[in-house]
Amino acid sequence: MTIPADEKPGARIGVSVALEGRAYDIHIGRHLLCEAAGLIGDLAPGAKVALVTDGTVAALHAPALEASLHQAGIASTRMVIPPGEASKSFGQLAALCDELLAAKIERNDIVVALGGGVVGDLTGFAAAILRRGVRFVQIPTSLLAQVDSSVGGKTGINSSHGKNLIGAFHQPALVIADTALLDTLSEREFKAGYAEVVKYGLIDDPGFFDWCEANWSRIIAGGPERDHAVAVACRAKAAIVARDEREEGDRALLNLGHTFAHALERLTGYDSRRLVHGEAVAIGLALAFRFSQRLGLCPGQDAVRVARHLDAVGLPSRLRQVPGGTGSADEIVAAMAQDKKVKRGVLTFILARGIGRSFIAPGVAAEEVRAFVADELAAG
Amino acid sequence: MTIPADEKPGARIGVSVALEGRAYDIHIGRHLLCEAAGLIGDLAPGAKVALVTDGTVAALHAPALEASLHQAGIASTRMVIPPGEASKSFGQLAALCDELLAAKIERNDIVVALGGGVVGDLTGFAAAILRRGVRFVQIPTSLLAQVDSSVGGKTGINSSHGKNLIGAFHQPALVIADTALLDTLSEREFKAGYAEVVKYGLIDDPGFFDWCEANWSRIIAGGPERDHAVAVACRAKAAIVARDEREEGDRALLNLGHTFAHALERLTGYDSRRLVHGEAVAIGLALAFRFSQRLGLCPGQDAVRVARHLDAVGLPSRLRQVPGGTGSADEIVAAMAQDKKVKRGVLTFILARGIGRSFIAPGVAAEEVRAFVADELAAG
Repeated sequence: MTIPADEKPGARIGVSVALEGRAYDIHIGRHLLCEAAGLIGDLAPGAKVALVTDGTVAALHAPALEASLHQAGIASTRMVIPPGEASKSFGQLAALCDELLAAKIERNDIVVALGGGVVGDLTGFAAAILRRGVRFVQIPTSLLAQVDSSVGGKTGINSSHGKNLIGAFHQPALVIADTALLDTLSEREFKAGYAEVVKYGLIDDPGFFDWCEANWSRIIAGGPERDHAVAVACRAKAAIVARDEREEGDRALLNLGHTFAHALERLTGYDSRRLVHGEAVAIGLALAFRFSQRLGLCPGQDAVRVARHLDAVGLPSRLRQVPGGTGSADEIVAAMAQDKKVKRGVLTFILARGIGRSFIAPGVAAEEVRAFVADELAAG
Repeated sequence: MTIPADEKPGARIGVSVALEGRAYDIHIGRHLLCEAAGLIGDLAPGAKVALVTDGTVAALHAPALEASLHQAGIASTRMVIPPGEASKSFGQLAALCDELLAAKIERNDIVVALGGGVVGDLTGFAAAILRRGVRFVQIPTSLLAQVDSSVGGKTGINSSHGKNLIGAFHQPALVIADTALLDTLSEREFKAGYAEVVKYGLIDDPGFFDWCEANWSRIIAGGPERDHAVAVACRAKAAIVARDEREEGDRALLNLGHTFAHALERLTGYDSRRLVHGEAVAIGLALAFRFSQRLGLCPGQDAVRVARHLDAVGLPSRLRQVPGGTGSADEIVAAMAQDKKVKRGVLTFILARGIGRSFIAPGVAAEEVRAFVADELAAG
């Protein structure tokens, strides 16, 4: 697989999300932030902008965006939330809605989310419920957000009962993925996002997985391979979202690795010092393949290859790699059972018949999962 | 106008809300509460029910509904919120979502709102955002809720900046309007709901307004006229909602009287001892017609006839009838400007060229409104 000609350095890649009546474009490329004002102005002439970001991102990227908005004659107000998963709470949601109302953001105005997944999820949800829905624009600043959370319209907050249990489907009106913004990420944060990139190969694109094995270090380094990887991921997600916006079918495939991941995040108290989402997903992907192997569905060599690639990149692939431990098999299964993909007590899993051959398996017995997890813990 | 044969005593009236993919039925009639379990069971076989109600309604009607659910083999959990507008808050929303999650309400289960507008608005909103959307059933127990808030999918909570500024469009899966439940309402509460009934005549159905003038006391007394009035109102609302679910056009007609009403509610601190929503709407309707008259749009005799009918029923029609007063004209206009129907600072009003001839008037000058309100206040 080689990078297409129109993705050579400096090119802007466009991906469309084909939702009837609410179609939108994802723009991917280096240094797009300085073009954001033009794109927003085209979308909503005369609108005001509420720019929501977190303290970390504000310092790095907000001034450039604000300068370009100002130059384009677009009025903007900055709203800053604390960085970190704890901001996906009812308290922050209420405070942000109040701030948006105080700034007199009306139905024709635009709410911009400049940040990672936390900023995007909280801001998108606030936009969904403010005056029963105002348009919002995603400018994701983490790899995870560029390839996953900013696309597809899932917004929400966490509950003490689990992650993302409160939220809305609210599609953005525009997504701007400036891949140069990722240069400021720590190596750990970049790699965590990479777990969501490689997931698209594992779901249904074995050729992309091959390409990732050969090119992962160039994706991290920031060449055109990075833009290509973001574009492949966004295209894959856009295609799935267009055919199943509300996760009544196929969209659940995007949860490959996530049933385990959410349980691990829950058991580590959403503490990013111990485990960030992408790391939990990496372990979840490896577990999903080993669990599939155990069930006689997936060749052992594919499960080994998945784990080996994650190891090579420097991502975790085993429960023992969770700092401070995960709790017992029973605790892990109990944490999974609170996931919102549970229908009347039966666990739904994404399993795989091999790399690029994942499928939705409703009705996996909790006991089967418990026994597998117990063996994983015993193996150390 | 006479009552149709299929609305004779004991008949059940059905009204369909024709929304593509989310069409639903409104069932209207006396003593339908004991049939609710059957209707819910047909809708969602095997589902659990979360029954949300307030303290007042729980004592009156919850046991009958629970008994019928139990008899039909449907598991239910009761959740009780405090009665009153103050429950439409982020705090109550968070608490209710938490209770629904603790009861393990999943995507296939049903949330039932048994109560008036507050219960319906809060519960519908919680259902909209719980796991990004679970189905809910409205069993409205006030006249106001039966003819207005339970139909059309507007759900939400209040903000310190105004009423219903945070919310979602989330259509119920079923509405059961048991008109016998209205027998327990106080006269004041019933009459307040009647303001929303007569509104449908004023919007676009002058024949219905004539009929209301002749039959209002029988609507209050609870004969077949009551069921007919509820059915006419629901049909009118269903037709408007079906052609404009998200209030991008026509649906705004339902706000006749409401721009004034929301301002009055805001200025009286949502204190139901001073003013309930329907009373504010009654004053708002009379003001909308007198304002239309002042602008040279509406014959004076129609404005007089509207106020005279409200007076006959025992509803307020003048600002001076607000206990404790409303504040100055400037304060009233400022309170209106925070309404969510404001687009970039310009006031949108529903005005009328006569009874049954209302229309949307965007771009009404605030100064025009202020002068009118000042004269109304001076007239006493």
